Amino acid sequence: MVVILKPKTSNEAIKKITGELEALGVTVNPVIGTEMSILGLVGDTTRIDPSYIEANPNVERVMHVQEPFKKANRLFHPENTVIDVNGHTIGGNKIAVIAGPCSVENKEQIALVADEVKKCGASFLRGGAFKPRTSPYSFQGLKYEGLELLNEAKAKTGLPIVTELMSPYDIETFVEKADIIQVGARNMQNFDLLKELGKINKPILLKRGLSATIEELLMSAEYIMAGGNEQVILCERGIRTFETYTRNTLDLSAVPAIKKLSHLPVVIDPSHSAGKWWMVEPLSKAAIAVGADGLIIEVHNDPQKALCDGQQSIKPDVFAKLMEDLKVIAGAVGREI
Amino acid sequence: MVVILKPKTSNEAIKKITGELEALGVTVNPVIGTEMSILGLVGDTTRIDPSYIEANPNVERVMHVQEPFKKANRLFHPENTVIDVNGHTIGGNKIAVIAGPCSVENKEQIALVADEVKKCGASFLRGGAFKPRTSPYSFQGLKYEGLELLNEAKAKTGLPIVTELMSPYDIETFVEKADIIQVGARNMQNFDLLKELGKINKPILLKRGLSATIEELLMSAEYIMAGGNEQVILCERGIRTFETYTRNTLDLSAVPAIKKLSHLPVVIDPSHSAGKWWMVEPLSKAAIAVGADGLIIEVHNDPQKALCDGQQSIKPDVFAKLMEDLKVIAGAVGREI
Amino acid sequence: MVVILKPKTSNEAIKKITGELEALGVTVNPVIGTEMSILGLVGDTTRIDPSYIEANPNVERVMHVQEPFKKANRLFHPENTVIDVNGHTIGGNKIAVIAGPCSVENKEQIALVADEVKKCGASFLRGGAFKPRTSPYSFQGLKYEGLELLNEAKAKTGLPIVTELMSPYDIETFVEKADIIQVGARNMQNFDLLKELGKINKPILLKRGLSATIEELLMSAEYIMAGGNEQVILCERGIRTFETYTRNTLDLSAVPAIKKLSHLPVVIDPSHSAGKWWMVEPLSKAAIAVGADGLIIEVHNDPQKALCDGQQSIKPDVFAKLMEDLKVIAGAVGREI
Amino acid sequence: MVVILKPKTSNEAIKKITGELEALGVTVNPVIGTEMSILGLVGDTTRIDPSYIEANPNVERVMHVQEPFKKANRLFHPENTVIDVNGHTIGGNKIAVIAGPCSVENKEQIALVADEVKKCGASFLRGGAFKPRTSPYSFQGLKYEGLELLNEAKAKTGLPIVTELMSPYDIETFVEKADIIQVGARNMQNFDLLKELGKINKPILLKRGLSATIEELLMSAEYIMAGGNEQVILCERGIRTFETYTRNTLDLSAVPAIKKLSHLPVVIDPSHSAGKWWMVEPLSKAAIAVGADGLIIEVHNDPQKALCDGQQSIKPDVFAKLMEDLKVIAGAVGREI
Repeated sequence: MVVILKPKTSNEAIKKITGELEALGVTVNPVIGTEMSILGLVGDTTRIDPSYIEANPNVERVMHVQEPFKKANRLFHPENTVIDVNGHTIGGNKIAVIAGPCSVENKEQIALVADEVKKCGASFLRGGAFKPRTSPYSFQGLKYEGLELLNEAKAKTGLPIVTELMSPYDIETFVEKADIIQVGARNMQNFDLLKELGKINKPILLKRGLSATIEELLMSAEYIMAGGNEQVILCERGIRTFETYTRNTLDLSAVPAIKKLSHLPVVIDPSHSAGKWWMVEPLSKAAIAVGADGLIIEVHNDPQKALCDGQQSIKPDVFAKLMEDLKVIAGAVGREI
Repeated sequence: MVVILKPKTSNEAIKKITGELEALGVTVNPVIGTEMSILGLVGDTTRIDPSYIEANPNVERVMHVQEPFKKANRLFHPENTVIDVNGHTIGGNKIAVIAGPCSVENKEQIALVADEVKKCGASFLRGGAFKPRTSPYSFQGLKYEGLELLNEAKAKTGLPIVTELMSPYDIETFVEKADIIQVGARNMQNFDLLKELGKINKPILLKRGLSATIEELLMSAEYIMAGGNEQVILCERGIRTFETYTRNTLDLSAVPAIKKLSHLPVVIDPSHSAGKWWMVEPLSKAAIAVGADGLIIEVHNDPQKALCDGQQSIKPDVFAKLMEDLKVIAGAVGREI
Repeated sequence: MVVILKPKTSNEAIKKITGELEALGVTVNPVIGTEMSILGLVGDTTRIDPSYIEANPNVERVMHVQEPFKKANRLFHPENTVIDVNGHTIGGNKIAVIAGPCSVENKEQIALVADEVKKCGASFLRGGAFKPRTSPYSFQGLKYEGLELLNEAKAKTGLPIVTELMSPYDIETFVEKADIIQVGARNMQNFDLLKELGKINKPILLKRGLSATIEELLMSAEYIMAGGNEQVILCERGIRTFETYTRNTLDLSAVPAIKKLSHLPVVIDPSHSAGKWWMVEPLSKAAIAVGADGLIIEVHNDPQKALCDGQQSIKPDVFAKLMEDLKVIAGAVGREI
Repeated sequence: MVVILKPKTSNEAIKKITGELEALGVTVNPVIGTEMSILGLVGDTTRIDPSYIEANPNVERVMHVQEPFKKANRLFHPENTVIDVNGHTIGGNKIAVIAGPCSVENKEQIALVADEVKKCGASFLRGGAFKPRTSPYSFQGLKYEGLELLNEAKAKTGLPIVTELMSPYDIETFVEKADIIQVGARNMQNFDLLKELGKINKPILLKRGLSATIEELLMSAEYIMAGGNEQVILCERGIRTFETYTRNTLDLSAVPAIKKLSHLPVVIDPSHSAGKWWMVEPLSKAAIAVGADGLIIEVHNDPQKALCDGQQSIKPDVFAKLMEDLKVIAGAVGREI
């Protein structure tokens, strides 16, 4: 941590603040400049709150040197984390494809889509039972019935289930009924929910918030990991920018960034990022080329009748063709699907 | 709602989609252009999900005409909503000042600050008992003990309490111990929490999410109101932009925008937006000049020792001076403090 | 300047890089940490390009300590700069109001508007002769004829002229025909134009780019000042964010920020920022309350017939009423109009 | 174009505004709703300025239906534009790789880099002679001497030259000395420069502005094309967002978006977008997978000694390896390098 002092801070004041900082358990190395002076802090600074130091009237600002996350940090865990769900892995050489409808609508729909994506080579089934919607008047999901229908589809296809949790009240049910619990972008900094998820033994798919930095995403993973649950899969799903042509702007550079900073697996959601079904194909290819560990794709048997996000869902035949193309791209970067 | 069709959509296809749209309970008026055609939808479109229509392969895109919120809409509720809390109002001619420390730290601190802000003319006491923090290793608040200390301060000063709720588990406790329940920026789209808050009878201070549009903020208010609780106070606290000099960019134009779109009161948080204590004064003045109904300001007796956000807290003497200045500004715009 | 080294950089490598940095004319103070080490650079670092240092494979990143601007920096020029144009000042106690139409359309229009704004107390006349338009098919301004009409209006009213320059070819003409030369947001980093403007003796109104940081705005001012022309007025006119309700998001916190960092005057453009005429009034009031030195407001005698930006122009009677209100706000912050 | 009227606009007012709109040369189809009415405009609306209509007090807002660009629009030019420079093409099946240093530094450097990138299979040589720099105190390029050195390198390698123009004064020189004239991100809306470039017969590489939408980029291309020069190559180089880990956020979804909207070729700049040399490899792969027509990559023989942007330049041996990898990816998407 580096503390920049205000111009013309007196030696006496520097001495005083040095003492206060050392009381926090770090060593302070002052660098006295002509216009400004800085203090270099050596030691474990992850538990020091920068705003505490910035409140000092002699402090101009505080800059991080080390990343503020530890358990998610590749520095202390150099090898990749590989999550294993009943033999299906995320984070290893094989690219994981999670596919299924935006929301579970009825028994036939989820059974049919599950069957189709399984045939095409998907290794996980996605489907929303509890749906976060901007409008209280939109379809909110089949809820517990949706979870049951997902489990019926799993029973037939063997595909593990990825589905979104919205309330801490449902954690026990999800531990029983889901294989990977998804935390949506809008809940990425619902810290109370993250803490609860830190106490369970179940992989978490944590989506990046609409305007969360990569560091904040990793800090949210750290919340879960600090509680004891180290099975976290990160998901880039587009960030909010000024561009309005796409629903969100997919930040593919987040993949090499996260790979450098952390050992956790990263998957890409090309459906929500663009919000346009015809962009799913090029963005999925790019995601694999850039080094993602998996994809989470919306597939619907009849997008025009979909109860949500039909405009960004692809049909099973498009998905089948896409999976063929993705195998070639995966091969080109030394991986398999 | 306006539906833009793809170029070269056939008459037959237009007829078919018209039929499908009318089945949703609206009247469809087609406008056939040379390059493109559009369909004008007349009727109650608030319950129609645009993505449902966009999934149609002949549809280019769908545009809102009416706002998607109803209960929060000034169109259907022309007069201002005024929230009354034990005789202290928000939304009327008098500007409400909510002041207090970022977090409740101990009995002496909250008692002292409550006393000071009361003396200066604040009408509500703020103070965090449950703290949303980016890092799991930062101070997380005194929790239930914090609520008790707030109530002790209230007993002495008579100031109603504004404090943040983070988990649905605590709603009952907050209904009992808080006068206004704050929903933080990071929970603005925690829809499950919003639904629960729609069922209680207690004013809610809803903070705008870091990257939430004004429309999304109003849709979140709509979630609470749709459940039956119409006592919602909106709070602009800075949005996330590319600028890094300030912690967030305070969007003061949101005040006249919300005033036009909605009848709900709006308050400004100048402390979190800038993240710098010396900006609280000019931004508070600007907030009143632009038409805000209130301010929520961080005041701390000893910012350098504050357990959180000390760098953005002002001292009681600065607050006292500020209140004097604000009275003059309020008078200049025909209001009082 | 602080140089953060990569974790595990050897002592030998630190020694080597220290030597290279000292060759750039600075003193290097190393702070050796357990996980990471940093180098504190003391001396004049404004001429060191951080990317040069970042290219070193042992360097993690480089952080500024001092601002990279000098002539625009308040540190080296503590008192406010006041620009004097024929006795009308910008930057002093009196708030400067620059008013007029988006574009000069014809002799009658500019004469009439000039007359009206003069009567209401504006001290400068604005009006575009050369118009930057997103579409090549939109009205591009009356060009040289527009400059002449502005000068006729000036002859009658005595109001100095503020008008936008788009091409270096026209600098000589503008030196003769304009009193303050405006550089538009889209040209804020047209460095060749800035360099040319550094060579003349005429005040420059430099608008902040749509996505320019405050520091970048000051660096663009520095370009002009480094050339010898120190009469620069900065203008905040809204930045581009994700919010679409307003055309841009007015960043009023930029005013206290610039006032702290620089001695240059700052004016606010409430017309372009919101893009809605009915927001001009509240945003103008807020601008004065927050400490701006002036306003630049679009006034048109018949906005519905305006050849550009009619939706954000106010009529003379609205302007007259606004000026009355602004006098009260100015008084409330100890200034006059 | 769709005109949304204010709620409660009278029939008389609708009749009046209809007449005014028809006077602009379009047919008006009214859709009268219960809460709001809209007017559908049929005909050529590209020359109608929406702000003109929005200035009408009965108009709520105006929405585009058709894109405002014509010459750049795929609707009127369905086949891809292929730019041919001395037999080297951009926009066809072969992916064009433009490589070279950020800036030309001296004869040996540019000769050496040109030779290396040629050997690895690059088809164009890039190199800045005139450099847009944020700071007036940074190296500004070798200018005319740089152009000469580029031409010497071209004479030896046969690689056509891509280099940035900053001032209209230099257009004639660039027509003679450059093969493709680059317009930098900061000049994307320097409309006077664009107009001048519309008059020449030389391909233009137009970089997307830091906060320019895809539509604005296409409108800037339209400026050049409207003048008669239809040889425009678009370049996505990262946009400005809230994320600070990367210098800019590369928007790869812009590639399929532009391909749908326009017939012009698109290239990706992976060096400027991330600002980190180790991200060039994954982002280049992703760019080809997503469908880009080319890449523009910074290669430097000695990045640590580079006079600019060394931190984002790759060495010739890294470039050689990258080109091998890219051939495989290109093959996987049915293209060649």
